[in-house]
Amino acid sequence: MKIYETKTAPTPRRVRFFLAEKNIPMDYVQVDIEGGENLSPAMRARNPVAKVPVLELDDGTCINESVSICRYFEELYPEKPLMGTTPLEKAQIDMWQRQVEFGLFMQIGMCFQHSTGYFKDRMTPVAEYGKVAGQDAIKFLEILNARLANNEYIAGGSFSIADITAVCAIDFGRVVKVYIAPEQTHLQRWYDAISARPAAKA
Amino acid sequence: MKIYETKTAPTPRRVRFFLAEKNIPMDYVQVDIEGGENLSPAMRARNPVAKVPVLELDDGTCINESVSICRYFEELYPEKPLMGTTPLEKAQIDMWQRQVEFGLFMQIGMCFQHSTGYFKDRMTPVAEYGKVAGQDAIKFLEILNARLANNEYIAGGSFSIADITAVCAIDFGRVVKVYIAPEQTHLQRWYDAISARPAAKA
Repeated sequence: MKIYETKTAPTPRRVRFFLAEKNIPMDYVQVDIEGGENLSPAMRARNPVAKVPVLELDDGTCINESVSICRYFEELYPEKPLMGTTPLEKAQIDMWQRQVEFGLFMQIGMCFQHSTGYFKDRMTPVAEYGKVAGQDAIKFLEILNARLANNEYIAGGSFSIADITAVCAIDFGRVVKVYIAPEQTHLQRWYDAISARPAAKA
Repeated sequence: MKIYETKTAPTPRRVRFFLAEKNIPMDYVQVDIEGGENLSPAMRARNPVAKVPVLELDDGTCINESVSICRYFEELYPEKPLMGTTPLEKAQIDMWQRQVEFGLFMQIGMCFQHSTGYFKDRMTPVAEYGKVAGQDAIKFLEILNARLANNEYIAGGSFSIADITAVCAIDFGRVVKVYIAPEQTHLQRWYDAISARPAAKA
């Protein structure tokens, strides 16, 4: 099996981080998204929305969406769980993963796409919306800081996929000047701890 | 336990539909989101991003995010699975659920919020972006139509949460004039079948 991805993009990093945490080896094939390689008929056959990462199994079956790829491996290798074990834990981690994804990751992504015009050959950037999305991302950091005042990790007492999503978002946020504020000490404490994990470099 | 929700909003309908499919009874408490009741300190204590639905367990624990609420009940009551049983099925249903959510549900939601100014007291609507989001939703219907040419349901051979997300999105799409096109016969066939399920009226 192999994963089609782009090393510099924030979404594939979530999967690399997740697989490194679980010590799952993987072959990675680089796709030039800036040059539009993801828009080729071959890549669209793998993923109709033409995004990376894409996990391709040995029989040709493809699984798209970073979180869904992680879910596949979590189900196959439940050791060292990153998506919870009980129904309540699974739901709470899923919930935080989603809140971080919608409130932070996606807002930073929208800010990037709409402000910079990076993909302007294949979408309609609306600069004013990019600005709003960036401001929403900055507001969400405050929610995370409050959450981390009383919790070691975003979903509570255990490191999870929600932490991976958040740290990948924050690192990419630099590109659009979304930073942890000096007074967000709980968020900074958490960020330093997550970033120090060996898998963060995957 | 109970769910705080808003009967007219598209997201809570996903949970009602899901629970009705699994014959899980529930108490629903209506929240007036148009009047801003979701922004109250009590509701923010339940969900820091101030959205509905929120599932509140008898001990006060809250689970937010419609898909995460569904996941909780799927884990508790795996009979009549709507999120898959094998690792591959779970990943593929999750993937289609996400693609429909991002490509259709969210685009229709953004089109609504940014075009109509419905929440203009609590966000910055960007009308031009609303238009782009609506166009993206219409494009995604073509991907769904192609998918349904060779599959009975969105995720393949079984009815799943991906179908629920999609039909709730399409029904809400009327508000912003996103409709199935006359030539999208596969999508229409699927839409009629899903809409005829008794749980669609929940």
